[in-house]
Amino acid sequence: ESLGKSGDSAGVGVDHELISSVPSHNPTFVERNFTANEISYCQSQPNPSASFAARWAGKEAIFKSLGVASKGAAAAMRDIEILPDEAGVPQVRLHGSAKEAADSKKIAKVQVSLSHSETMAVAFAQATY
Amino acid sequence: ESLGKSGDSAGVGVDHELISSVPSHNPTFVERNFTANEISYCQSQPNPSASFAARWAGKEAIFKSLGVASKGAAAAMRDIEILPDEAGVPQVRLHGSAKEAADSKKIAKVQVSLSHSETMAVAFAQATY
Amino acid sequence: ESLGKSGDSAGVGVDHELISSVPSHNPTFVERNFTANEISYCQSQPNPSASFAARWAGKEAIFKSLGVASKGAAAAMRDIEILPDEAGVPQVRLHGSAKEAADSKKIAKVQVSLSHSETMAVAFAQATY
Repeated sequence: ESLGKSGDSAGVGVDHELISSVPSHNPTFVERNFTANEISYCQSQPNPSASFAARWAGKEAIFKSLGVASKGAAAAMRDIEILPDEAGVPQVRLHGSAKEAADSKKIAKVQVSLSHSETMAVAFAQATY
Repeated sequence: ESLGKSGDSAGVGVDHELISSVPSHNPTFVERNFTANEISYCQSQPNPSASFAARWAGKEAIFKSLGVASKGAAAAMRDIEILPDEAGVPQVRLHGSAKEAADSKKIAKVQVSLSHSETMAVAFAQATY
Repeated sequence: ESLGKSGDSAGVGVDHELISSVPSHNPTFVERNFTANEISYCQSQPNPSASFAARWAGKEAIFKSLGVASKGAAAAMRDIEILPDEAGVPQVRLHGSAKEAADSKKIAKVQVSLSHSETMAVAFAQATY
């Protein structure tokens, strides 16, 4: 498969999670998987567990959009950071191994959208060259 | 952030709603948020409340894909119109403030897809330059 | 509507299904709607009914992304094949009527992502010129 040109879709990702299935009350889970800025942001929201779950689904969706091999236990989901800009639109920043994976595939940008209801979180991601 | 070229993704949006949480039995809610053509269409469907909920999720997803600041109570969701073409594919037309927001960001097109089950509606939107 | 240039989004599709609503225990349903390779793959997974349901949602989402008229009973969902590549990323191959529909619209590529939880499957598809 040839690489796409700049702006072409490199991959898409979708994920959904029951909010109750994301252990955001567990500090070890939270510190292993979220950056300090993500933790501050989620804890400032009206429903922190919903915000953590939506962000978790977002990280999974972004991971899928990068099209890299199954992550396994060592994958650092903390290397995928999702924070709102001034307009509240979630922006993606990749660090460490996630950034290396994106760079190796010439992925220049990842966009994400998050949604949560009382019980569920859904996320969608698109990676572009 | 530089603007993308024509055809590039400007933003994505996802939303999901419990059908029971969208008050489509409330005429004030319906008339405030849906156009006359949308209301006719939804009322002609086998399950009007599911159709209204899917369209509502679609409007939220489109709003997110435009990447504009949090809407607040004054936002006219009626300015985002979703109607099927001859093939049944939902087409997006923006009016008023939604059109102004899209124009100001050089967004030329918005695509949307809707899905509903017995209890839930899910929608995805993509805005492109 | 003019056709987009190579790489532009031709359409998007989203679908979700309750896993319990997809009759993957019914051999007639399975053989009518899945290819031999899809059946082998799903049956090799830890939760075959979840894998069949996610793939079914994927086929529906892909169908929507092609933007063709409502399929009716004769549509061969088996003409839409979703199989993982070496990295586990789902790849789409179109056959028969699905391939004809894509070709007639100058759709060159379809990307899909699948997600399942205990009870639900969600899929997203994007068709590009």
